[in-house]
Amino acid sequence: MGDADILNEQLASALPAAWRCLSPLGRAAAFPRGIPFQADEARDCTVNATIGQLTDGRGNPLPLPGVAGSMDGVDPRRAFLYAPIDGPEDVRRAWGERERRLAGGPDVPTSLPIVTHGLTHSLSLLADLFVDPETDVVVAAPSWGNYKLIFGMHAQARIVAFPFFRGGRFNVEGLVAGLASIRSKGVLVLNLPGNPTGYQPTSDEVAQIVAAVRSHQGPLVIAVDDAYQGWIYEEGRHQRSIFWDLCEGVDLDRHLPVKVDGATKELVFFSSRVAFLTHPSAGEEADAALRSKLKFLIRGTVGSASGPALGLVQRALASPDLESAFAERKALLAKRWNTLRAGLATLDEARVRVHPFNGAFFALMTLDRSLDAEAVRRRLLEEHSVGVIAFPQFNAIRVAYCSIHDEDLPELTSALHAVLDAS
Amino acid sequence: MGDADILNEQLASALPAAWRCLSPLGRAAAFPRGIPFQADEARDCTVNATIGQLTDGRGNPLPLPGVAGSMDGVDPRRAFLYAPIDGPEDVRRAWGERERRLAGGPDVPTSLPIVTHGLTHSLSLLADLFVDPETDVVVAAPSWGNYKLIFGMHAQARIVAFPFFRGGRFNVEGLVAGLASIRSKGVLVLNLPGNPTGYQPTSDEVAQIVAAVRSHQGPLVIAVDDAYQGWIYEEGRHQRSIFWDLCEGVDLDRHLPVKVDGATKELVFFSSRVAFLTHPSAGEEADAALRSKLKFLIRGTVGSASGPALGLVQRALASPDLESAFAERKALLAKRWNTLRAGLATLDEARVRVHPFNGAFFALMTLDRSLDAEAVRRRLLEEHSVGVIAFPQFNAIRVAYCSIHDEDLPELTSALHAVLDAS
Repeated sequence: MGDADILNEQLASALPAAWRCLSPLGRAAAFPRGIPFQADEARDCTVNATIGQLTDGRGNPLPLPGVAGSMDGVDPRRAFLYAPIDGPEDVRRAWGERERRLAGGPDVPTSLPIVTHGLTHSLSLLADLFVDPETDVVVAAPSWGNYKLIFGMHAQARIVAFPFFRGGRFNVEGLVAGLASIRSKGVLVLNLPGNPTGYQPTSDEVAQIVAAVRSHQGPLVIAVDDAYQGWIYEEGRHQRSIFWDLCEGVDLDRHLPVKVDGATKELVFFSSRVAFLTHPSAGEEADAALRSKLKFLIRGTVGSASGPALGLVQRALASPDLESAFAERKALLAKRWNTLRAGLATLDEARVRVHPFNGAFFALMTLDRSLDAEAVRRRLLEEHSVGVIAFPQFNAIRVAYCSIHDEDLPELTSALHAVLDAS
Repeated sequence: MGDADILNEQLASALPAAWRCLSPLGRAAAFPRGIPFQADEARDCTVNATIGQLTDGRGNPLPLPGVAGSMDGVDPRRAFLYAPIDGPEDVRRAWGERERRLAGGPDVPTSLPIVTHGLTHSLSLLADLFVDPETDVVVAAPSWGNYKLIFGMHAQARIVAFPFFRGGRFNVEGLVAGLASIRSKGVLVLNLPGNPTGYQPTSDEVAQIVAAVRSHQGPLVIAVDDAYQGWIYEEGRHQRSIFWDLCEGVDLDRHLPVKVDGATKELVFFSSRVAFLTHPSAGEEADAALRSKLKFLIRGTVGSASGPALGLVQRALASPDLESAFAERKALLAKRWNTLRAGLATLDEARVRVHPFNGAFFALMTLDRSLDAEAVRRRLLEEHSVGVIAFPQFNAIRVAYCSIHDEDLPELTSALHAVLDAS
């Protein structure tokens, strides 16, 4: 009996009217035992590597100076009155300009970004707009578990998964096979660098991915989940979002790339719930048509974004120190990345395959069949007070080093050694 | 050709891949010409009575002292790191306690409120959970246009509307008829005092409404939209939310009342996007089952609420001056209400029926057939720089006096006189 069945039985006996009123989605609903569930179990751990948000490793946030502190410099009208449904125009403009600047000023026209309630909401809007039971949604595996909820459970898509890695690189052949299995229309989700792999491809790999996408006959929406944009620590990796590569010479008859990004990680403002949706411009009229549909969907789900957070995002985007402050945070993570990489290299390769990682906030490792990821997670939790996330279906462990202090990383590595030796 | 058809044609020609990928909901989507659309047209008016948010009448917010100002006293972890999916427990507890206190400590057990992204999101969650094409959603007419988007367009319910007023009172007979037309399962939306009527019933009327609901065989979810809770200016009106009356002796086999409330109006924090969902408790297990389903839905649509706003809500709820600060704001609105009521009483009753109004932020008037509400709105806008909202389908005009300075109310009344005389 699945989790949802158990809940439905409980409701049937104690809240019969509620149970009888459930929609098909309501009947299927049950909070998954994924990352938030496992993170909750680890909340009292000494070393808690479960949650993908940057902290000082002592539970405290490291907000950018432009975001942190008081509401000084934030217009009270902005902070306390309703925002436009698609966001204040100055914030949308400032965000779009920064994105283009970070990408080196690409020569492709794009729409003015629309403000959403965070990256989940952006993806949920794309699901509402483009996904129904006839849609195939192609995602790498493993990938963020919420894709399954958003596209599969809510929007009833068929999820087509292909293995993320192949020979220590992004699995372009798997992507081609995934795209080939689309029945009529599709959505491809790309999350580079991403969760849980922490992998950013080289420019060479990006060119191959773009070629694979370009060869698909469509119609295809490419949702570029740029949550971790800019968080890349290794030389020789593609530096800009693949969105821009997909836009260059895009055939809008067949393809629509959509950039899904936001303040969450790019402005180190995890609680903000301020994100953006951008697509290649197809002229004022068509951009307005798509915006009208998106505004309709925003209005009928959550309304406009939260004022105090929007005000702080606006202030941060206007701050002359933004890029240097971000670079500082990135240097901090690069140091942790280096330490962790050295530590994980000491693990027995025959039992633990540590996948290449060089971006975002995570290291991912697949365990040998003689080991059980969920059992390893439990022992780390209970015997060493170390919290990590297990992906039982991949027999894999994810370490979110964004929330671990540099000094605690050796403890994490030695706990892994101890549990593996004893398992 | 409808608005959506026009948009679809524009997309078909300029963004063909996007157009071919549209879901049924995406095809139907078009931002409505409702309140946000009309408010946008009136944004430069001298007297702008379109938007339901409290201002000083000069465009400035009037936040409660506990909300306003800096982020001092807000825990940075609260402000900048992820919140739990269902909200921080202390905020949920503080909100639930205040609601019970405001209702005079009712003797009915209720669930710990769940945090959502605003009242729209709360209603959208109820739609996801309880509404499908087999569901009839009963609403008074006129009511907030977004109900149609949320329940009708998004969740595919059949909307059953009954006239709000009958003989200058809430139309209990219409409610009974609406409930009687439910085919199998239903959702009833009650919004008292509400938008756009601004009407709060007497205790006697509330008892009749409760009796009408109670006599329905169910299964029925009663969504009590308490957005404007507490904003009542007239003596002799029912003082607490009808949610509590519905909970007393509720038969959970047939009925589930759900309280939909939030910081938006109750804490004069329009931009917050912090709201709450509460239902009668059916024991720990059943409450947890419903919570699991709601958390699943929140996770797959927007994730947890915005940190800075949550922090400010927490601070406001802890402020010892909260109730006196709210009373001050309410006194301000009561004064505007009195002035406007006197002004509207001078209009020609034969041509303009001003419905009784005593709560929320609005006055509603139905125009005689010889007048056209949309034409009256246009003339007010273009000839007098006065912004109001027209409801063409009811030939009615809504005045949001919450955003009009006391001194400007005579100007609004005389503009109405002038336009009616000239029409």
